[in-house]
Amino acid sequence: MSSAAGNAAYQRLKGRFARIAILGESQAMLHWDASAVMPPGGAAARGEQLATLAGLSHELMIDPALAADLGEAEASGAWDVANLALMREAQRRATALPTDLVEAAARANAACETVWREARAASDFRRVAPYLAEVVKLQRETAAALSVATGLSPYDSLMQGFQRGIGAADVEPIFDAYEAFLRDALPRAEQRQAQRPAAIEPRGPFAVPAQQALCRDMAQRAGLDFTHARLDESLHPFCGGTPSDVRITTRYEPGAFSQALLGVLHETGHALYERGLPTAYARQPVGEAAGMAAHESQSLIIEMQASRSDAFLGFLGPRLHAAFGGDATAYAPENLARLWRRVARGFIRIEADELTYPAHVILRFRLERALIGGDLAVADLPGAWNEGFARLLGLTPPDDARGCLQDIHWYDGAFGYFPSYTLGAMAAAQLMRAARIAVPGLDEALGRGDMAPLLGWLRMRVHGQGSRLGFQDLLREATGKLLDPADFTAHLAERYL
Amino acid sequence: MSSAAGNAAYQRLKGRFARIAILGESQAMLHWDASAVMPPGGAAARGEQLATLAGLSHELMIDPALAADLGEAEASGAWDVANLALMREAQRRATALPTDLVEAAARANAACETVWREARAASDFRRVAPYLAEVVKLQRETAAALSVATGLSPYDSLMQGFQRGIGAADVEPIFDAYEAFLRDALPRAEQRQAQRPAAIEPRGPFAVPAQQALCRDMAQRAGLDFTHARLDESLHPFCGGTPSDVRITTRYEPGAFSQALLGVLHETGHALYERGLPTAYARQPVGEAAGMAAHESQSLIIEMQASRSDAFLGFLGPRLHAAFGGDATAYAPENLARLWRRVARGFIRIEADELTYPAHVILRFRLERALIGGDLAVADLPGAWNEGFARLLGLTPPDDARGCLQDIHWYDGAFGYFPSYTLGAMAAAQLMRAARIAVPGLDEALGRGDMAPLLGWLRMRVHGQGSRLGFQDLLREATGKLLDPADFTAHLAERYL
Repeated sequence: MSSAAGNAAYQRLKGRFARIAILGESQAMLHWDASAVMPPGGAAARGEQLATLAGLSHELMIDPALAADLGEAEASGAWDVANLALMREAQRRATALPTDLVEAAARANAACETVWREARAASDFRRVAPYLAEVVKLQRETAAALSVATGLSPYDSLMQGFQRGIGAADVEPIFDAYEAFLRDALPRAEQRQAQRPAAIEPRGPFAVPAQQALCRDMAQRAGLDFTHARLDESLHPFCGGTPSDVRITTRYEPGAFSQALLGVLHETGHALYERGLPTAYARQPVGEAAGMAAHESQSLIIEMQASRSDAFLGFLGPRLHAAFGGDATAYAPENLARLWRRVARGFIRIEADELTYPAHVILRFRLERALIGGDLAVADLPGAWNEGFARLLGLTPPDDARGCLQDIHWYDGAFGYFPSYTLGAMAAAQLMRAARIAVPGLDEALGRGDMAPLLGWLRMRVHGQGSRLGFQDLLREATGKLLDPADFTAHLAERYL
Repeated sequence: MSSAAGNAAYQRLKGRFARIAILGESQAMLHWDASAVMPPGGAAARGEQLATLAGLSHELMIDPALAADLGEAEASGAWDVANLALMREAQRRATALPTDLVEAAARANAACETVWREARAASDFRRVAPYLAEVVKLQRETAAALSVATGLSPYDSLMQGFQRGIGAADVEPIFDAYEAFLRDALPRAEQRQAQRPAAIEPRGPFAVPAQQALCRDMAQRAGLDFTHARLDESLHPFCGGTPSDVRITTRYEPGAFSQALLGVLHETGHALYERGLPTAYARQPVGEAAGMAAHESQSLIIEMQASRSDAFLGFLGPRLHAAFGGDATAYAPENLARLWRRVARGFIRIEADELTYPAHVILRFRLERALIGGDLAVADLPGAWNEGFARLLGLTPPDDARGCLQDIHWYDGAFGYFPSYTLGAMAAAQLMRAARIAVPGLDEALGRGDMAPLLGWLRMRVHGQGSRLGFQDLLREATGKLLDPADFTAHLAERYL
């Protein structure tokens, strides 16, 4: 086969994948609309629109003509070679799954998610157990089929769907070591906290328009350009849209501002990643974000590393006081640090502090691996959860609503996603450390409310790399080493110990 | 061929057309988003998203498997027979046009529209003339190809793309008669107006939040259910979205409220039509609105017939005064009638009053028919425009910006659309007359701000009919006769003479 024919096939593939990406962009916009502005009466039609676009996308991916082009295609240059490899991987994953299995899983997930909402409200695991058993059964079949196509273990083949370039064999020792670190660090952090003055709660109400203006200003300071972005409201904050039109949301409560503001800074981190993806490979697999752990590293480096740094709190405090008035001591940087770095063991993952959050993730990683591996029966999940939780955080959940029923993920068929949260937190610390070394004056800039030096480095080292590298290789090229949890524990030690 | 096989083919076709309709719904939502909320930086990507969805839709329509099903399909019952006939028509129209021609026309339209914006701003027809010549050439080729497929004349085959069931041979005598009516009626209306007290302009400013609340309230009173609808702002008011999630927009100016309010009532008429389409045939050709003239009849029956009726003005006046305060005499129903029924010859179609508006449309109908027929060269358009305008309204446009450059339609490749405006106005009068006869107490209800009796009749006679009938047959079943301009001129005579 001639190289000219190989190149022609590759060019055709770029067109095919761009079309698939455009269907994805359309779905992203319809999803944003559903979450942010859609009237409730539009829900049923929206579900069918999203399902139809997903079906069309799948048909384009399993088209035999696309497979023929993949067989013929040749690419040269690191980016195009990586792009072609990612095309092949995406097509292998799509064709590995029989349509019947995909549809059965989609139906089982939808049915289970509906029952889960009732079961969680009633804290009644037994109500949802048979539905979850069906979801797990179909996810195990999915994992087995993907495993054949990818050559990875079944669990890793699911994990790859969320994050390429790292697997359970990497994660397990890292998480085990964190458990050991936490056993020592958590009581020390609690003791230290108890010996210091308690945080003063700022007194509201905090007018929603003032919160909105503040959030928008801070997102802009972090580098978000509102000619290519929107900030709206939704029940659960998220970052959606497309790289040239990114949509973040938050939720305002008149009685508190921290959640909305920190939520906006978190979603801004996601949005900046999308905005910084390489435009030369827009709508190509290699031009996408590198995965969910990489994405979470970018939200957390803005929210946890930069925005809660001493330097940035020194800038932020007077702005908060100017926005909301009242007692200035509540907005003093030291008080903001106490407020936003408070350690507290709790049952709910999404309310957890930076130190204990990984324990929530470690538990879920172990349990979902056992569920997919067939080593844990769904009926035994509540017991295994409570036992594992007690071992990690020394507390026993009083009910399943505060235990294994709290998160939607499994009940919606998402297995292999949870590790991304903590891999992202660890990568954020590692990237921040590398950025501080590489970029002189980074913290001084944060002290002026200026995130541009940090953002410039992230654009070069992370955003602009697209999906050229898997998670570990991305970190190695950016920081000189594979994922190294020591940077995260050093960050935690400095902040909490 | 067995009837079972014929029915199976028809059922498959319903699935195929539902998929095509869902792509259309997705495009409608992306179009709304682009007009109402999209940040400017999203425009380029949005254009590609819309073009890709349109391309996928076209591919589904020209799929040989769809053609095979159309060949086999059998349907029974009036609705399904009509649905199958509409499927065949849609497929014939789609396959009649070579892909090269469709793409060339899309490119020519986009290029011409861009140049038109500059040409209109500079009032320089010559700048855009070569682009318009290319557009017209490709529209003539399109019309010729569609003519072969439809058996209609070239112009009628374009018109059919906007409104089925009426053609130029029907329209021509109706428009000629209106010209004759206007020659007598316009001077009389002007004279009568001059002899009456001048309308008092309400004094602003009119706070935008108060306008928004008023517009929303009036749309609800007209029957729009905001669990299935939104009201937003855009540069040009429009009605978009889907039947279960309809999106109307308007534009608020603090210095005036009439335009926003009447615009909302107009778009509400469109929205109510979409909301009232037969759900049993949702996403099927027969379940769609009957065409652009039918659609305009529904916006105008709400805006022009119901909302500007004496009865409704009697209800509205005190509400306006309550909303905006100031001098009550400006909101007296008699004054609102003078304000909103003012006759004034002018050059601009979209600013025209109810009486002279058809003259603008008649001119465009004649000229576009001549352009498509090859009887008028693009270079001669400004002269023909000005001559025709002077004959119809006795004024000569001082420049082409106020003449043949004012409307986007032709410069964007839309030929055969203009008659819909006046056919819609005439149908609105005819339907209103029939509704008044059929529904006792209709005007008394309008006097209480209650449009439910009118809406109930429209739902039964128009909205719920979908596309089962063409324009003329729809009117005949609803009113007992084909389009009868005498109802429109009687309405005008009562209001203006």
